[in-house]
Amino acid sequence: MPYMKTMEHLRADLHRLGLLHSTQSLLGWDEQVNLPAGSANHRGQQAAALADLVHREATRPEVGAWLVELEGHATALSEDDQVIVREARRDYDRATRISPDLVQRKVALDSHSYHAWAAARKRRDFSAFAPFLERQLELAAEEAACFGKTGAAAYDYHIDKHDPGLDAGFIQGLFTELSRDLVPLAAAILESPVRARTDIFRNFPVEKQEAFLREVTTALGFDYQHGRLDRSLHPFCSGVGADIRMTTRFDPDNPLDSLFSSIHETGHGMYEQGLPENRLGTGLGQAVGMAVHESQSRLWENQISRSRPFWSHWEPRFRALFAEELKGISSEELYLAINAVERQPIRVDADEVMYNLHIMLRFRLERALFNREIAVAELPAVWAELSQELLGLVPEHDGEGCLQDIHWSGGAFGYFPSYCLGNMMAAQLWETVQVAVPGLESDFEAGRYGRLLRWLRQEIHQHGRRYDTRELVRRVTGRDLSPAPLIAYLRDRYGSLYL
Amino acid sequence: MPYMKTMEHLRADLHRLGLLHSTQSLLGWDEQVNLPAGSANHRGQQAAALADLVHREATRPEVGAWLVELEGHATALSEDDQVIVREARRDYDRATRISPDLVQRKVALDSHSYHAWAAARKRRDFSAFAPFLERQLELAAEEAACFGKTGAAAYDYHIDKHDPGLDAGFIQGLFTELSRDLVPLAAAILESPVRARTDIFRNFPVEKQEAFLREVTTALGFDYQHGRLDRSLHPFCSGVGADIRMTTRFDPDNPLDSLFSSIHETGHGMYEQGLPENRLGTGLGQAVGMAVHESQSRLWENQISRSRPFWSHWEPRFRALFAEELKGISSEELYLAINAVERQPIRVDADEVMYNLHIMLRFRLERALFNREIAVAELPAVWAELSQELLGLVPEHDGEGCLQDIHWSGGAFGYFPSYCLGNMMAAQLWETVQVAVPGLESDFEAGRYGRLLRWLRQEIHQHGRRYDTRELVRRVTGRDLSPAPLIAYLRDRYGSLYL
Repeated sequence: MPYMKTMEHLRADLHRLGLLHSTQSLLGWDEQVNLPAGSANHRGQQAAALADLVHREATRPEVGAWLVELEGHATALSEDDQVIVREARRDYDRATRISPDLVQRKVALDSHSYHAWAAARKRRDFSAFAPFLERQLELAAEEAACFGKTGAAAYDYHIDKHDPGLDAGFIQGLFTELSRDLVPLAAAILESPVRARTDIFRNFPVEKQEAFLREVTTALGFDYQHGRLDRSLHPFCSGVGADIRMTTRFDPDNPLDSLFSSIHETGHGMYEQGLPENRLGTGLGQAVGMAVHESQSRLWENQISRSRPFWSHWEPRFRALFAEELKGISSEELYLAINAVERQPIRVDADEVMYNLHIMLRFRLERALFNREIAVAELPAVWAELSQELLGLVPEHDGEGCLQDIHWSGGAFGYFPSYCLGNMMAAQLWETVQVAVPGLESDFEAGRYGRLLRWLRQEIHQHGRRYDTRELVRRVTGRDLSPAPLIAYLRDRYGSLYL
Repeated sequence: MPYMKTMEHLRADLHRLGLLHSTQSLLGWDEQVNLPAGSANHRGQQAAALADLVHREATRPEVGAWLVELEGHATALSEDDQVIVREARRDYDRATRISPDLVQRKVALDSHSYHAWAAARKRRDFSAFAPFLERQLELAAEEAACFGKTGAAAYDYHIDKHDPGLDAGFIQGLFTELSRDLVPLAAAILESPVRARTDIFRNFPVEKQEAFLREVTTALGFDYQHGRLDRSLHPFCSGVGADIRMTTRFDPDNPLDSLFSSIHETGHGMYEQGLPENRLGTGLGQAVGMAVHESQSRLWENQISRSRPFWSHWEPRFRALFAEELKGISSEELYLAINAVERQPIRVDADEVMYNLHIMLRFRLERALFNREIAVAELPAVWAELSQELLGLVPEHDGEGCLQDIHWSGGAFGYFPSYCLGNMMAAQLWETVQVAVPGLESDFEAGRYGRLLRWLRQEIHQHGRRYDTRELVRRVTGRDLSPAPLIAYLRDRYGSLYL
């Protein structure tokens, strides 16, 4: 059977490409963590030379011929190989259908657009960035057209890029349902006489902050034998399971920021560490998409690490390390600060209640832009309107409104929804696992997380991209993705604190 | 003139290959500095995938055709382009003439051979490593034969790989002359009643050691805007001028080790930083070879930084940082410790007087092995004999004798001589620059090194590989490489201290 030999070639080639992609990822990590100030231009050239070479390897006509041959024998392939071929096709089409000319125009635009955005944001003036956003929307439409997707379907194309199996209609349904319950819940919490104070932390030595979060993330299950934690301007997690690079940042007056951002990245990192290493580069060794990734980071960050059982274990250690600094802060004040809810305009500073509303706003605007229901020039006005409706505030200027996020400057449309979908999925997984693995909260009270992590490995991590986003959720939780568990979870966690 | 277009293609392609090679170098740096313990296998696979790809790019028949075309128009090319074509030919032949089969056998042998060496060294038993050394010598001969070099000429081939323009006969002449004066000089120093004490340093805080050596290396001229200093098990310097990565290591009881190893790497780093950045990847943007590189590191480490003028500036700062730790250590004791001479068997621990004798020993053995004057099995016995003759001691076991160095386990023959040639060259450059730039020692007394660095940039760094090793020395110093300046320098420096 000669196609078996072809299958072997494909697997070996995908593995090799996986190694090369992970090398590109390492260059990116090094740029954020280590690069000397004057070396940026050199690094840009290195990355471009490598990207060009890897792109050429990934788009060899030979690979296309293998795929055609294997698709002709699809039913004879093992289930695993079918997944590998399907996902290789997805990646190959994405890499080959977009013309080199479009790629080059996009690279050039991204660079100009980023600088225009940064300058416009500084001057708080959207009009200076508007032409670049127009152009990004045009190129996004052009890219979608390469796959036969135009009009409203173009936005679906971009969503599917980040989260296979999802589309704008489905997301709209979820968000409508979520906002119906979340907007009044958020309003009630914000009107509560109970107020969290987040300004009670002062001069927490960075070395001790780092020691504490390393203890915590090690206990959660991050494998530091196959990963690192370093510092960068913005926290992120990159690499593949065999070598995960997470970063965080430290503020002496905000020890919770570094702690929870590290736990968040730990969730991402443990997902990658749970993907089958021997499947690197194939669809069986890669994460499903952004929303599933975010479900892992949010579950560990929120459902687990902002809970009373978690803190009943860790508070004594936290107080032992910061005896002086925590003097005069009661357990309840600490717990309230960990679960503070605040009305403010900036998404990245938002708590887990308000965050979802920030996302809905962006989703509605992106969808309206793609559907030509609003024009780019109208963005600040519509932003203000939606912000009032969802967040209960109007931004004071574009800098804290429609210029606050970097995403659109790089033409990353269809990316924002993943954050909120990840929150929903985390809550739905949390609901499921509490039934499937009884007594988890007692584990957390004892500082043990192994049973939870094993369940996630078993139900999610080990499958790679075998199932798409919705299918995975249905298989693991027994039903389609729904906002109900998130609402129930937020009502429970925040209702008991504030209402 | 169509060949002008070809020249442009070649230059662009070399630049691209230079970027890719510098990416490989970054992977190597990251492996030594950052790699999590469990990620070694993954990194090995990444590096192999990238090396394979880059090798394929560098050996494209297209490049060979360009070179043939350009060589046909050699006299019409600018002087710069002639250098670029000549050096590209050298690299292209090296990359293409060695068969993929030989490369693969070498990679496999290197891995086995390294582990056999490490185990044999631990057990202090050369016989366990001997078959691997035999095999490495065979492959080294096979590699040289790809270039038509057999017998004694095979060793010349390996020397020329590290130091273009040099051969074993020339080196033998230099070493014979050097040993004639150096052996009695070393003996006289070792018999001196003056004894340096190197065990007088205790508990020098590592953070302050690092602060001090960063001050010093910055003052010397290392550009930290285009480079970093990190920690690794063994100090090294890698990268290209636009982004140099140096490393060091710290021992609280040996502050001079980290200081001088960092200054040494700073010398390497400043050479790379002085190569023309816009010539990256071409012969005009690359270092001549190992010996010239070593001349730069040794000049800064020894001639400059172990001198009285240097310490007259830095000692007050050193004492200010380590007031407590240096209490009871006089200036003269400190200076003697900086210039200690000791008889001991390990090359990497040797001082600048004895180091050269360690190298001569290895050179004589390598040459005898290539010339079949001795057999591998005789190595321990001949090592002991030569060690007695040159160093005045016999190693107690193979672990501190012929198994002490890693080089031969990787088949790196013809590499050792560069260290001693670098020492000679450093002394010859130092002799020259003192005449060319009068008053340098007054600069050092004021902590200023700019005039020296500018001279090195002008005379050496800016030329890349324009001249080969001997030619460069002749042009800069007005005569062929000679051991006389090294002897004169050592007599002066150590005679005034010990004799």
